[in-house]
Amino acid sequence: MTLLDQKFSQLATDNAPGQEGRQAGIDLSGLLLGDRLLGAPVDFSHGDVDAFTPTPGSLEAFAGAVHSGGKRAYTEYRGDPEIRDDVAVKLARFTGTPISSAEGLIITPGTQGALFLALASTVSAGDKVAIVRPDYFANRKLVQFLGGEIVPVGLNYLGVQREAGLDLAGLKDAFQAGAKVFVFSNPNNPTGAVYSKEEIDAIAALAARYGATVVVDQLYARLKYSGVDYAHLCATDIDPANVITILGPSKTESLSGYRLGVAFGAPTIIGRMEKLQAIVSLRAAGYNQSALRTWFAEPYGWMTERIQLHEAIRNDLHSRFVSVEGICARLPQAGSYLFPRLPKLSITHQDFVRVLRHHASVSVTPGTEFSPLSSDSIRLNFSQEHSRALDAVDRIVELVERYRA
Amino acid sequence: MTLLDQKFSQLATDNAPGQEGRQAGIDLSGLLLGDRLLGAPVDFSHGDVDAFTPTPGSLEAFAGAVHSGGKRAYTEYRGDPEIRDDVAVKLARFTGTPISSAEGLIITPGTQGALFLALASTVSAGDKVAIVRPDYFANRKLVQFLGGEIVPVGLNYLGVQREAGLDLAGLKDAFQAGAKVFVFSNPNNPTGAVYSKEEIDAIAALAARYGATVVVDQLYARLKYSGVDYAHLCATDIDPANVITILGPSKTESLSGYRLGVAFGAPTIIGRMEKLQAIVSLRAAGYNQSALRTWFAEPYGWMTERIQLHEAIRNDLHSRFVSVEGICARLPQAGSYLFPRLPKLSITHQDFVRVLRHHASVSVTPGTEFSPLSSDSIRLNFSQEHSRALDAVDRIVELVERYRA
Repeated sequence: MTLLDQKFSQLATDNAPGQEGRQAGIDLSGLLLGDRLLGAPVDFSHGDVDAFTPTPGSLEAFAGAVHSGGKRAYTEYRGDPEIRDDVAVKLARFTGTPISSAEGLIITPGTQGALFLALASTVSAGDKVAIVRPDYFANRKLVQFLGGEIVPVGLNYLGVQREAGLDLAGLKDAFQAGAKVFVFSNPNNPTGAVYSKEEIDAIAALAARYGATVVVDQLYARLKYSGVDYAHLCATDIDPANVITILGPSKTESLSGYRLGVAFGAPTIIGRMEKLQAIVSLRAAGYNQSALRTWFAEPYGWMTERIQLHEAIRNDLHSRFVSVEGICARLPQAGSYLFPRLPKLSITHQDFVRVLRHHASVSVTPGTEFSPLSSDSIRLNFSQEHSRALDAVDRIVELVERYRA
Repeated sequence: MTLLDQKFSQLATDNAPGQEGRQAGIDLSGLLLGDRLLGAPVDFSHGDVDAFTPTPGSLEAFAGAVHSGGKRAYTEYRGDPEIRDDVAVKLARFTGTPISSAEGLIITPGTQGALFLALASTVSAGDKVAIVRPDYFANRKLVQFLGGEIVPVGLNYLGVQREAGLDLAGLKDAFQAGAKVFVFSNPNNPTGAVYSKEEIDAIAALAARYGATVVVDQLYARLKYSGVDYAHLCATDIDPANVITILGPSKTESLSGYRLGVAFGAPTIIGRMEKLQAIVSLRAAGYNQSALRTWFAEPYGWMTERIQLHEAIRNDLHSRFVSVEGICARLPQAGSYLFPRLPKLSITHQDFVRVLRHHASVSVTPGTEFSPLSSDSIRLNFSQEHSRALDAVDRIVELVERYRA
């Protein structure tokens, strides 16, 4: 096995959200119990942009860019300067931190693009990188692809409520062991846990003490439920040279189909990210960048309503899950992910996910994508039509009962 | 200097097309001779999509995808299966080779995305990669970033006419020296040279003999001038497991602002490319993919007219350049690049490019981006408004006369 064979074997995407259709036909007949559960198919692997539609004005912004022509088709690799100016002002207000649109911000093809560029600009083969368990699956895969070494840090998300539950002693150990980069999502994907101000301050202090770079993926930071405080790492007294913040309009604002993300922070790292973007994809699609004009500029009340609708779905789905014996789930404080832990079943949880798809028309993402320790959990993106989502959760619960060990 | 510092220092983008605006203010006052040359600014660093507008129907295809909703927003990482089917049929017809839309084709964010994925899927640190001099600058930068070792192969593009002028003995030497990958553009960027059938057959035979993978960037293969034959490498008897072909609608079809590219060929490599795309940018923007419906489906006569208009510009610009003593330029057989070699000047060619921009409002790309041996050449993308382009070339010629050594 060559080095490349090995690298790519770690990049398996068979269970990644949206790739299920590419799985080879698997014979589940020996596993099926009872009748097929009927109901509208629900794909919890990502949000339903038909249920929650893109920000008003986004298509018009795109079309306007096409009509403007060359000025919008080609931009600097880091993005159109005028659009960067606009986004920098809005993100500075949102996060409470100064942002240099000229030197400290880059527009990328989605936040996935930003994550890749940020890690490839800071992680070299053999470098240690601290990664939370569980966290967004690409963090792990990126570090592996770059030849870095993962130092896992635990998240006790089921044991606490006011904080995310980060194992701060574990993070300190990781830095002491030589980790130079820490990457994490806040709110946490897949659990919806939000890091407390104390946790964010502690991360900032540890990063400062060990001179580590922190990459924080805040993709879901706007979809924040009642009574939740959110602390921006970039607004602490962390050394600005050591932090990159990533945000984008793909989730809460349903602009996924435009592939837009933004990273801001340390100019040296942003500069590297631009150089790398130049050979990876040149730039976020030129016309698409104009859709960022609608971001943080939604019609009055639009975001409030979107949050309320998601909060109602969250409450119903969470209540339904935790009413079942043996299912634990943290109440997500932000974002649209729910990460229930299922009881012991008579089939593997991997097979359960397959049965769920084929026998109940419900797609979820297996917990192993997020942590090797989370094989008993499943992730649902509950940005879905409310009643259909609730029906689908009923079918999940019904199958849990059928397969309960 | 760390390994990362070193890698990123090789990725300089200061002279890359479109990045000129980011160069720090440079004092040229000691270099300027004579009055400023007035005229409409012309940016030859890329094509002018206002002069040659995007394929009819592309915006409507995009808007249609937005209205279709979730089905188009999220696709498999390798792209929407229906759109892949459509593109595979069209590219199979164009190249005369069978293409599996299920296993052998991926849609990427531009052909730049395809090039990155293809090389990152085949080149590991320490691997030797054969690269033509001159050729598209990103080829070299990608290999350097991946830690590969460049084995240069010459192109005698000024000495021949019926073929591109590839140093086939040099390519054989490169393979003998252990190069496992050969990447090249056909038509060649920056010279517009098209490889002859004999050259393509010879490349196929050498690749077969040494078991090398060939990545061929055919971005400009449709913009082919009168009397030119074009041979597709994938249609030779090369082992299909060893070739990846890259095409896209960004240039001839002016769809650059949509960031779309396609790679097809060996399923094993395409599979790796998809896994990597999953962590680099997820996918080409979902809605944008629908613009590929308009590709190879242009209105009757549209492409013929586009080619004729470019051929007329090519003829005028080429004649003007070669009428000047000491300027040599190959007549491009395809594409919209012209790569004149300038005579010896009283200032460096690098300063000449700067003076040209500031004193004559003409942007060109310095030859050193394409080969360390091409410092005396400049690249022009002549996909511009005809008369403005010709005026701008007059200004280039005027400055050549002023600075002639």
